[in-house]
Amino acid sequence: MIHFKQNFKQQLTADDTKKIDEVFLNLKEEKDSDKIGYYKLYETSKKILKETKEYKKNNKYLKNKKIHNIVIIGIGGSTLGTKAVYELLKLKQKSSINIIFLENVDPLDISSKTKDIKKTNSLFVVISKSGSTIETISIFKYILEKFKLDLKKDNKRLIAITDKGSNLSKLATKNKIRQFNIPINVGGRFSVLSAVGVVPLVLAGYRVEKLLKGSKEFIESFFTQKEDHLLEKAYFYFKNKDTYSINTLFSYSTYFSYFNDWYVQLWGESLGKIDNLNTKVGLTPVGLVGSIDQHSFLQLIIQGIENKTVSFIQIKDFEKNIKIPKMNIDFLEKTDFVNGYNFDKLLNEECNATVESLIDENIATDVMVLDKLSENNIGILISYYEILTSAIGAFLSINTYDQPGVEFGKKKLVSKFN
Amino acid sequence: MIHFKQNFKQQLTADDTKKIDEVFLNLKEEKDSDKIGYYKLYETSKKILKETKEYKKNNKYLKNKKIHNIVIIGIGGSTLGTKAVYELLKLKQKSSINIIFLENVDPLDISSKTKDIKKTNSLFVVISKSGSTIETISIFKYILEKFKLDLKKDNKRLIAITDKGSNLSKLATKNKIRQFNIPINVGGRFSVLSAVGVVPLVLAGYRVEKLLKGSKEFIESFFTQKEDHLLEKAYFYFKNKDTYSINTLFSYSTYFSYFNDWYVQLWGESLGKIDNLNTKVGLTPVGLVGSIDQHSFLQLIIQGIENKTVSFIQIKDFEKNIKIPKMNIDFLEKTDFVNGYNFDKLLNEECNATVESLIDENIATDVMVLDKLSENNIGILISYYEILTSAIGAFLSINTYDQPGVEFGKKKLVSKFN
Repeated sequence: MIHFKQNFKQQLTADDTKKIDEVFLNLKEEKDSDKIGYYKLYETSKKILKETKEYKKNNKYLKNKKIHNIVIIGIGGSTLGTKAVYELLKLKQKSSINIIFLENVDPLDISSKTKDIKKTNSLFVVISKSGSTIETISIFKYILEKFKLDLKKDNKRLIAITDKGSNLSKLATKNKIRQFNIPINVGGRFSVLSAVGVVPLVLAGYRVEKLLKGSKEFIESFFTQKEDHLLEKAYFYFKNKDTYSINTLFSYSTYFSYFNDWYVQLWGESLGKIDNLNTKVGLTPVGLVGSIDQHSFLQLIIQGIENKTVSFIQIKDFEKNIKIPKMNIDFLEKTDFVNGYNFDKLLNEECNATVESLIDENIATDVMVLDKLSENNIGILISYYEILTSAIGAFLSINTYDQPGVEFGKKKLVSKFN
Repeated sequence: MIHFKQNFKQQLTADDTKKIDEVFLNLKEEKDSDKIGYYKLYETSKKILKETKEYKKNNKYLKNKKIHNIVIIGIGGSTLGTKAVYELLKLKQKSSINIIFLENVDPLDISSKTKDIKKTNSLFVVISKSGSTIETISIFKYILEKFKLDLKKDNKRLIAITDKGSNLSKLATKNKIRQFNIPINVGGRFSVLSAVGVVPLVLAGYRVEKLLKGSKEFIESFFTQKEDHLLEKAYFYFKNKDTYSINTLFSYSTYFSYFNDWYVQLWGESLGKIDNLNTKVGLTPVGLVGSIDQHSFLQLIIQGIENKTVSFIQIKDFEKNIKIPKMNIDFLEKTDFVNGYNFDKLLNEECNATVESLIDENIATDVMVLDKLSENNIGILISYYEILTSAIGAFLSINTYDQPGVEFGKKKLVSKFN
């Protein structure tokens, strides 16, 4: 369960309400017409989930418990969501399978991450929606060479996740490498609940069905108009976009760090666009981790230029009962007021005190409180942020789902190798 | 060696030049009067360096090579700089000593990071400039209890780094815990080259003298007016602050991720202030890692609202000669143009192609090229960013060195535990 609380006030006129209703119908149309596929992944991914479980049972290496590493080769939308979920729920898993992400063409990063990998204890998963991402394919070639992997003979050590019919898909078909496809109507940054996230997370022992259940719960609730707070927030962000051009997500747990990265891609790549009047628009996402960034970015929020909204994420119960000891140390008496309390109490009260400080400064805030860190709640949160992004995109009159700007450098890159 | 190249054009009038000269004198005065201490750390920290080496030789646990972990307990300025240097230069070290950072009161983070630590193989370093940071002292108490550390009997397993005369300093004196002090005129976020960074990095086997040498090199060069590009950049950021309110640091290596975090604190906490006309001002820092974030944030930079400047960091030679194999795979021919090249060539050409794309879009960029990843270059880069921050602060007519906004929540926090 997640409790959503918005601390900003907005008076909605009849005209505002009309616009909000239009956007709601707009999203509903995207979903019902299957123009945009992420809304139904909780349903369509059930098949992938089942197939992955079967694959897991039948793959000779997985069956014999020889696999300790799932090595993902991918970048951007092919890794960010999986990394987010993997990190958030890692401590809950009893599985002994690690996921290693090879996502940068940084030679130090590649060498260091592949140093302790062995061919015999690893399964290699190459992920590219388009099937020809230059970084991903270059690292894939390196891996093939380094581990002497033959596309045909070692096909049971390989998995491809890509669009049906892509070049990577053709390669997989030719070499009988197991492939899972991403629905064509699901964009990379909206794909965490498709094969992109489902396959590796299932292989690593995560309870993905509960993630999908959380997603279903939120999406159904949204489309039966029980989550209107989302549209109101989207409208507030849209209406105040010239004043509040930056949206800060302040997550109170170290484990949210990669979730923040996922949010940054989702928001930045979806909402930084040229609108229907040919104007460059966009909301800039910033991810922060509490309480660490109270000692870093908070000063800027409180006394810097007033161009930020701030969303907080809090976990009510960390289910990890560790306490600040009742210890009175000479000279440190001033800190004794937290003695005997759980660390999560301190963390969450720091969050609450920060929220209140921002309210005092008239900064627009909202708080999302997860009752605990569960698969279900992460599923809710993912779908909440995806729909929020779609809603703001609709208000902005942009194409939320493309990324033409990313292409600009590609030709230039090719010319540098001639 | 670092090559600094600025791609934005600005015509400086006589009036502009006068303002720039004033700021230069302003910084020089801060340095010469010892009002601000970070400018001379390359000199003043030599003593700390020497003392730490002696301590290392004489501490009975370190001497016998029993220590595998330096456990740092700190937050914000007490850890961010050390983490940045530690991460950037980690692969160059032959030392077997790890640094573990306990910097969040997140119960999952604390449990997970202390799980494999033993009292007998660790040295615990508590760092707090003020000496009473609530997060740090709370974790410190937890550590004392968990590892049954007695302040007196186990004082050789403990180090305190704090301001002279702080409560933590008094505690250290009373219990004969080795302490190192931070100069009073050096703020937390400017303290990485003080005892805060020097002590743990020397203990972990880092060649800190070379860091200090790089710092000295840049600072001396700056104050003999051989680095005027820095002041011109600061002035450009100041003059265009209403248009370009966001400054993005796009670092092309995974290992710069914590350096980005350090930059974010330095910039955000220094420059988010109420100015001398009682107006909230501030430049918002955003840290990105290339080429990963080409698949995340770049779309927003290129086609989103034009409110960003972008600085790039590049490492010319990664000194890690790993290649993209000359491998022609059916269906993947399109990616063969990078075959046979080093990965760092691909990474850096991606950076170059991105810079050129931004120049085409009239986005203000600059590029810093490190000839390699060395202690000397990191020392230069740290001092470059610190002085750049001071210069922008001077142009903005703010107090760059305080952080009053951070205090706002503290009283509220105390009230929640009554």
